[in-house]
Amino acid sequence: MITPRTLKGFRDDLPETMMVRETIIDQVRGVFRSFGFCPIDTPALEYLEILSGKGSEETDKQLYKFTDHGGRQVGLRFDLTVPFARFAAEHIGTLGTPFKRYHIAKVWRGENTQAGRYREFMQCDFDTIGTDSVASDVETGLVMYEILHKIVGPRFQIRINHRKILSGLLEKLGLSDQATVMLRCLDKLGKIGRDKVAGEMVQFAEATPQQADAVLKLSELSGTGEEILQSLGPMLTGNATGEEGITKLSRFLAAIETAGIPQDRIVLDVSIARGLDYYTGTIYETFLDDLPQIGSVCSGGRYDNLAELYTKQKLPGVGASLGLDRLMTALEQLDRLEKSQSPVEVFLPYFVESRLGDYLKLAAELRRHGVGVEFYPEPKKLGQQLKYADKKRFRYAIIIGEDEFAKNLCQFKDLQTGTSKEMNLADTTQMIESTLPHSMRGNQ
Amino acid sequence: MITPRTLKGFRDDLPETMMVRETIIDQVRGVFRSFGFCPIDTPALEYLEILSGKGSEETDKQLYKFTDHGGRQVGLRFDLTVPFARFAAEHIGTLGTPFKRYHIAKVWRGENTQAGRYREFMQCDFDTIGTDSVASDVETGLVMYEILHKIVGPRFQIRINHRKILSGLLEKLGLSDQATVMLRCLDKLGKIGRDKVAGEMVQFAEATPQQADAVLKLSELSGTGEEILQSLGPMLTGNATGEEGITKLSRFLAAIETAGIPQDRIVLDVSIARGLDYYTGTIYETFLDDLPQIGSVCSGGRYDNLAELYTKQKLPGVGASLGLDRLMTALEQLDRLEKSQSPVEVFLPYFVESRLGDYLKLAAELRRHGVGVEFYPEPKKLGQQLKYADKKRFRYAIIIGEDEFAKNLCQFKDLQTGTSKEMNLADTTQMIESTLPHSMRGNQ
Repeated sequence: MITPRTLKGFRDDLPETMMVRETIIDQVRGVFRSFGFCPIDTPALEYLEILSGKGSEETDKQLYKFTDHGGRQVGLRFDLTVPFARFAAEHIGTLGTPFKRYHIAKVWRGENTQAGRYREFMQCDFDTIGTDSVASDVETGLVMYEILHKIVGPRFQIRINHRKILSGLLEKLGLSDQATVMLRCLDKLGKIGRDKVAGEMVQFAEATPQQADAVLKLSELSGTGEEILQSLGPMLTGNATGEEGITKLSRFLAAIETAGIPQDRIVLDVSIARGLDYYTGTIYETFLDDLPQIGSVCSGGRYDNLAELYTKQKLPGVGASLGLDRLMTALEQLDRLEKSQSPVEVFLPYFVESRLGDYLKLAAELRRHGVGVEFYPEPKKLGQQLKYADKKRFRYAIIIGEDEFAKNLCQFKDLQTGTSKEMNLADTTQMIESTLPHSMRGNQ
Repeated sequence: MITPRTLKGFRDDLPETMMVRETIIDQVRGVFRSFGFCPIDTPALEYLEILSGKGSEETDKQLYKFTDHGGRQVGLRFDLTVPFARFAAEHIGTLGTPFKRYHIAKVWRGENTQAGRYREFMQCDFDTIGTDSVASDVETGLVMYEILHKIVGPRFQIRINHRKILSGLLEKLGLSDQATVMLRCLDKLGKIGRDKVAGEMVQFAEATPQQADAVLKLSELSGTGEEILQSLGPMLTGNATGEEGITKLSRFLAAIETAGIPQDRIVLDVSIARGLDYYTGTIYETFLDDLPQIGSVCSGGRYDNLAELYTKQKLPGVGASLGLDRLMTALEQLDRLEKSQSPVEVFLPYFVESRLGDYLKLAAELRRHGVGVEFYPEPKKLGQQLKYADKKRFRYAIIIGEDEFAKNLCQFKDLQTGTSKEMNLADTTQMIESTLPHSMRGNQ
């Protein structure tokens, strides 16, 4: 006998988790679509040359790679960005720009497993490519806002920044060459504090203590967006890069406000850096008010050129990725994951063996009226069937024995309250249809 | 520069295909759920020992397998049945029986690519395990019926048979030991004809010409279900296996009829054999009236013991698998794939650059009312934006220039007819909401 087990870092999704996952994906997809984003899909396996060297050193190490039947070097995708870059290079001529896509799919990374980290996880990415208009930056923020609002309610904050603010300052300070290292140091501000960050800037980026202080001063600016932009002005005067960042941010914030987003939901935070070199413009991070320590649940940014490794066509774009698994972990920790044991609310026990077709006919009629119903497959004792119903937490049961069939009746039982009412079998569908709220019908 | 390309046998899904795929999956899932089937998911990668030797010799050869970072022998799943068997052995104690699951996911097979065959494809499986009640066999047929009816309309036929009919006859003829080979020969009836099948039975299964003739006679029975069952009676008298098959089939057909399924949609066809040894009871195949040559688009059957390789617990069950890619190919060939270029019907051109926030506010309001809308990200010339709208085949455009903003108006343009009407900006949402049928709103 073979031991049934999953690989380390992998897991099964049982129904109660999978139902939540499907609901959340439906919500996310609904938002993407309502903005005109289109779905795409790409193969799980790609040529290794497409994947390797395109992420970080870390993702390279984590890549699942092997030689296939035809002797080709292949790998499992580790994110949805690299496949999208390859996809865009191949198809953008047909699709045209601007092109807005979403992609909800699994990715694989053979990383060291820690609490809550898996080697297979789902990403929900959306991007607008082929335009550098700030309108798409704003729309990216709006999509993030709508998704978070739908899934977690109002208690979250999207923090934005613009890469050119910090780049401008580094230029002004003569630290452009050390920009990447400076960003990495700054990224640790929340974790190790100001003094240590300043120390690391001096140590690793060869900044003077004064330069480190200037960078930290900028990143510590707080207040309303307008206040921060006003303070930034003098810090970046005369530097074109920095001034462009200020202009873009102020256009972004003005549009967000006019569009009607509450001011404390999308805020300017000049301390966020996001380590990836890839980003060149607006950057986004999202934190839950009630669980900030879990980290950003939806992040992204603007980039200058998506597919430069695969095509000469310049494709600027902006997008973000929702961390679905992290978000589900957060909802679970906040005790806000509404798990259910069944996709339907109505249970139909199988009572009189010879009446199989009649039960199935009633069930079919209910389904035609949009009421999902589960029929128990064996004519066991009613008590045993109701025990099953209890475990699966159905809300209602329709009980029909030989007596009821003879009189064309049924008992409609509320399993929560334990009360029953007798109904004419012919009226059952209509009665139940009007009893169940639409959301409880179990049909799409 | 790296050539952007996909591996042989793999392909990208562009938006127009992917939108159809998502719609069909939603419909399939809606049916599964309305019967109380729950979703599950399992890892794409499994221990090689879980996968290899569990399908056919062919699937073994096609398995994508390699050694992972931890030195483990692993493979990509080639179907959803083997992972489900492993899953059931691991979790059935927690989940309890009967257990009804669906699983919609990709599988991988490194097979030789032919027209319409891919190395990565999607399967939609559903099964009821932990019961041998005929009620689940009937329900399996009903689920297949509802799915096909929803996706292709009424022009299809589900053919059923019971393994014990043929097994009974083979027992009676003393050919039980050659059952597998006989089944494989019979499976070719549609392709190579009666005479050649009879010849192969004699050649490969060591049947006498009389025995081959008896088997073929049985498989050639035609007429209504009742007529066939009546003819089978004398052929199988005295053989317990065969008689059990007859009883099960007649209970199945009676229940299907009472449940209200049109008689010509689910029919008894004693010629179908389905090569897999795995099946032990009812078997199912589904053919499209208008494209029978594409083969069965939804097949399945009953089995005695799902997970015998991984657990001592006996888990009988019944289920089927929808060939989503084959079905999509069929719909395409029948010119019945309703492709669209955008998930929304309403297009909002960006006209007055300084009014970004106002446009986005209107779009947000429309979305809040369930009307999906795509906003063009750049304030280009209207003609250019409408050309984009034309390519994406939006149905309506809302045009607002400086004049309109000043007067609080908009032009609501029907892009199909070319007609426009002027609307008060404040009334736009309500007017559009009442104009668009619910299905065209682009929101879930």
